[in-house]
Amino acid sequence: MIDFRRRRWVKTWPALFTATVMLCLAASFLPMGMTPASEAVPPVERSNPTACGARTTAPRHYQVAASPDTVHWGFYSKNLAPVIAVNSKDFVTLETITHHAGDDYDRLIAGDHAIEAIYSWTADGKAVERGPGVHILTGPVYVCGAEPGDLLEVRVVDLKLRPSGMDATKTYGSNAAAWWGFQYDNLKDDPKPREVITLYEMDATGHDNYAKAVYRYQWTPQTTPDGVVHDTIDTAGIIVDHNTVTKITDTLKGVKVPLRLHLGSMGVAPSEADIVDSIPPSYFGGNIDNRNIGIGTAMYYPVAVPGALFSGGDAHASQGDGELDGTAIETSITGVFQFILHKQADLDGTILEGVNYPLLETPDSWIVHGFTYPNYLEALGEEAQTKIYELSSLDPALKNSSANLRDFLMNGMGLSEDEAFSLMTVGADFAITQVVDGNWGVHGIVPKAIFDPATVKPKPTVR
Amino acid sequence: MIDFRRRRWVKTWPALFTATVMLCLAASFLPMGMTPASEAVPPVERSNPTACGARTTAPRHYQVAASPDTVHWGFYSKNLAPVIAVNSKDFVTLETITHHAGDDYDRLIAGDHAIEAIYSWTADGKAVERGPGVHILTGPVYVCGAEPGDLLEVRVVDLKLRPSGMDATKTYGSNAAAWWGFQYDNLKDDPKPREVITLYEMDATGHDNYAKAVYRYQWTPQTTPDGVVHDTIDTAGIIVDHNTVTKITDTLKGVKVPLRLHLGSMGVAPSEADIVDSIPPSYFGGNIDNRNIGIGTAMYYPVAVPGALFSGGDAHASQGDGELDGTAIETSITGVFQFILHKQADLDGTILEGVNYPLLETPDSWIVHGFTYPNYLEALGEEAQTKIYELSSLDPALKNSSANLRDFLMNGMGLSEDEAFSLMTVGADFAITQVVDGNWGVHGIVPKAIFDPATVKPKPTVR
Repeated sequence: MIDFRRRRWVKTWPALFTATVMLCLAASFLPMGMTPASEAVPPVERSNPTACGARTTAPRHYQVAASPDTVHWGFYSKNLAPVIAVNSKDFVTLETITHHAGDDYDRLIAGDHAIEAIYSWTADGKAVERGPGVHILTGPVYVCGAEPGDLLEVRVVDLKLRPSGMDATKTYGSNAAAWWGFQYDNLKDDPKPREVITLYEMDATGHDNYAKAVYRYQWTPQTTPDGVVHDTIDTAGIIVDHNTVTKITDTLKGVKVPLRLHLGSMGVAPSEADIVDSIPPSYFGGNIDNRNIGIGTAMYYPVAVPGALFSGGDAHASQGDGELDGTAIETSITGVFQFILHKQADLDGTILEGVNYPLLETPDSWIVHGFTYPNYLEALGEEAQTKIYELSSLDPALKNSSANLRDFLMNGMGLSEDEAFSLMTVGADFAITQVVDGNWGVHGIVPKAIFDPATVKPKPTVR
Repeated sequence: MIDFRRRRWVKTWPALFTATVMLCLAASFLPMGMTPASEAVPPVERSNPTACGARTTAPRHYQVAASPDTVHWGFYSKNLAPVIAVNSKDFVTLETITHHAGDDYDRLIAGDHAIEAIYSWTADGKAVERGPGVHILTGPVYVCGAEPGDLLEVRVVDLKLRPSGMDATKTYGSNAAAWWGFQYDNLKDDPKPREVITLYEMDATGHDNYAKAVYRYQWTPQTTPDGVVHDTIDTAGIIVDHNTVTKITDTLKGVKVPLRLHLGSMGVAPSEADIVDSIPPSYFGGNIDNRNIGIGTAMYYPVAVPGALFSGGDAHASQGDGELDGTAIETSITGVFQFILHKQADLDGTILEGVNYPLLETPDSWIVHGFTYPNYLEALGEEAQTKIYELSSLDPALKNSSANLRDFLMNGMGLSEDEAFSLMTVGADFAITQVVDGNWGVHGIVPKAIFDPATVKPKPTVR
């Protein structure tokens, strides 16, 4: 018996050792506070409903491929016909296409028929009209039952880089240091000023999680099919003639930029104007450009029009807080999103009570957005969409962001105003979201782990 | 033999298992990219040199206890007599005392004879004169051989909370939501405006790594020994009469604020004026209030006067980026610092070439500071020390911070300006340091792991 026991131990120890090593390795790859596995995503349906029907017991999963018919370029609008109608809890796979693909036709457009079709621009005209903003947005998605005053939760279930049309193992993204960048008027080296495109390459198989620079070139005047010469990057979707530029391949040698996949622009249609420039973000979301809106996070948007009319685009392989030179690593991404509708009447007494700004939930934090103007369309009147570019500043953006975080801690966490201000001073961090979109952004981050779960208000019931 | 071998394995497996568990546990507490173990700190010398002598082969370790003789209250000055003279590579243990101890005499002053002595203020006068700023700073430390143009590296070897004079297992810190706070003019609840003190308790044994609120009270007019009534927190070191305030103990119940020990103010003496207000930070460091300056980090300061004249204080148990309501969790901390002098002539060709701003190195990142005015004393002339409070803004602070990060990437990392701007846009983060000190701050963070070590310039040789 003694021998037997000893032998059992002999076998148990190696097993214990191996198990511990495996657990240790697994734990070291798990970011702290990682979100629990989300609900299984059902298989994709064969056809997309464009009108609201009866809800099924289980949520459905639809796919919206990018095409000239499913994208709108440069604006959000309450007047757009939806590309799909979904019920609360449904999933949608949404293909988004970068508006910087023209910076390298061969790598970012050629061989990808959807992108070719969307970018089509001949002397006869464009396949997709563009403006007043620059972003290609896929949608809108009509969320059945959504009404002004509700809150639309959009869960980012998955984000995948779109493979290059010429080589499915690779993909590319473009960073444009452009005239709207924060240091464009403050360059050291000649020629001044100048715009510069840096092209980055990523692994489309998902194995390597970094971007590396392939080359850079200085912008030269480009002629579009309408005969207009563009001395700067002053319109969307210009196909750069690579015979006119000088590529410098000795660029950022050895530098590996960690990927932070996200969509720069996701939002619902605002109610204030028929056509709203896609560039400045606001209460309805839009071009928030917060690099934290990654896989496993959820955005909450105040619904402003019936059906909410959600669109997304401006995908980024990576971006730093600030988006300093004008753009991120602009690329095309296919995302899986789940839409959860929270009716206004269900919000009282929950953590989402009083949320009237775009709110981000990550696995380990709540992130409250603020802007120079919380609602610039309302605040600046008829000329809002031009004035906003002259009036942007971080000081009022921090004012708005910190007031919103105060409100979140009071309404959602049940703190008094004095408790809220002390806590957000000693335990919350304010970062610069972007300073290049007009209506500059500041976001406040409060970690979930600070709170005793027993004192935190519940989330609304998902219906 | 077989039996023997088996027995050896029997003993080896448990040992391997235990070792693996220990390693795994240790690794889980180690942040990614933690700095390698620093040089062993030698034992403390019995006496402190006040003049420069011959350097010893091995670095020495001195201790500067806080006392009315070793602190200066409210200012940096090139005219202060040093409390100690050290050589490059020497260590100094520096006791720092919070200027908010008067918010709760019993918990933060009583029984601690050094703090009692420093705070002594009777009808006959003060033990230590105060102003024009508010911080109690310990020093200055004279660094032998330091001259204008050199760079002083200050390594933060250790930081420990100073135990309460009444109970050595506990310690306390005060957060003042004060009139200089960012939302003081934007309160929701009555009475408006109001100042609020929130007292936090921490574990002085180092076991628990969080702060929890004990109570809060609203500021009431306080009379100082000179007979002046202070309706607001308008002078440093007021001892609050707790018979005049109403403590609310139901404050932030269940909330645990993670500790982020750091000194809000560390710096060298500026050359521009004889007495410089301790509140606004600038090129010489000072009240930077960056919560990232913790154990295992190093600050680099441009030396402006002979001997550098380093002082430190304004210790924080924790602070969020922004320091929104006016202060952090203000507490007393004893730190161990190593001083490394980098002579100007040694900087060319190194990663520190061209650094003329306060630079922070953490185990995994380089953090570049910027302010509304890089050097407000020079830029704003004779009235700089009053004007700075009216002129602070985040927009120029980001301009300065991002220009400094561009310069760091060009000079220190050998990038071209175009490479630098692209990289800092897609791979660096800009955060709000503070908006309550005058000369508001923004810091830019670039992760070390982005770079191929083979392409990074060396650090200067430590002499």
